[in-house]
Amino acid sequence: MVDILHRIGIKASLDQVYEALSTRDGLAAWWTQDTTGESQIGSALRFRFLQGRGGFDMKVLELQPAKSVLWEVVDGPAEWIGTTVRWELKQEGDYAIILFYHQGWKEPVEFMHHCSTKWAIFLMSLKSLLETGQGTPDPNDVKIDNWN
Amino acid sequence: MVDILHRIGIKASLDQVYEALSTRDGLAAWWTQDTTGESQIGSALRFRFLQGRGGFDMKVLELQPAKSVLWEVVDGPAEWIGTTVRWELKQEGDYAIILFYHQGWKEPVEFMHHCSTKWAIFLMSLKSLLETGQGTPDPNDVKIDNWN
Repeated sequence: MVDILHRIGIKASLDQVYEALSTRDGLAAWWTQDTTGESQIGSALRFRFLQGRGGFDMKVLELQPAKSVLWEVVDGPAEWIGTTVRWELKQEGDYAIILFYHQGWKEPVEFMHHCSTKWAIFLMSLKSLLETGQGTPDPNDVKIDNWN
Repeated sequence: MVDILHRIGIKASLDQVYEALSTRDGLAAWWTQDTTGESQIGSALRFRFLQGRGGFDMKVLELQPAKSVLWEVVDGPAEWIGTTVRWELKQEGDYAIILFYHQGWKEPVEFMHHCSTKWAIFLMSLKSLLETGQGTPDPNDVKIDNWN
């Protein structure tokens, strides 16, 4: 088992960060504009990218306001299914800190390298959204390689 | 053992990418301006950040033109010592692809989360350097959190 880990600090409140991670509108403003479904325990969120050519369905497992969000990937690329995406929030000085975990990858395949870098890009989009009012969700996301 | 993995694609030649990874001037143009030492097998490169308040010494273990670079961390933060940083290059269409590995972390500590995100930022600086002529090495690097 191998994991993707990241950390960012955002000059915003924990409540603002939590809202961007736990509501459809929040998620659509930094990850992908094509976000549908319900952010409720047991429901699924559907994230689509590249004009619908790819994406992930996430079952919401945990929603703790201002503290944590946990999803399980229930549909998407084979490498993603069964993995979990966890967000832990805490305050440090002026910053809301996010500890990010995409856990449960079976093998460190080349696609995992790509996703690790791309997660960092989207975390910076989230930071930008909350600090400047403007994120860069798909299809306006920063491109990193020939896979997008 | 846990690893940091990344992947980027750069519209440049493998030789250009290799030069940016295997020469002091190349490294200083995207990672940190305060880069000293020699990029030769068995020698050490010294990378300093935050006006000299932190940094890493890397022993150069492997230099394969247009193909790979391997360093071992011989001085720096305790969590980094003994870890290795590996760069693998390959061509795919118009892109020089980099597969990046920072391997041998003993524990997935919070500092590893930070370094994972920060490596992505510096890889994007490398991409920018080669595609636009302008990188953002320390002290002009993009800040990600309260640790910088």
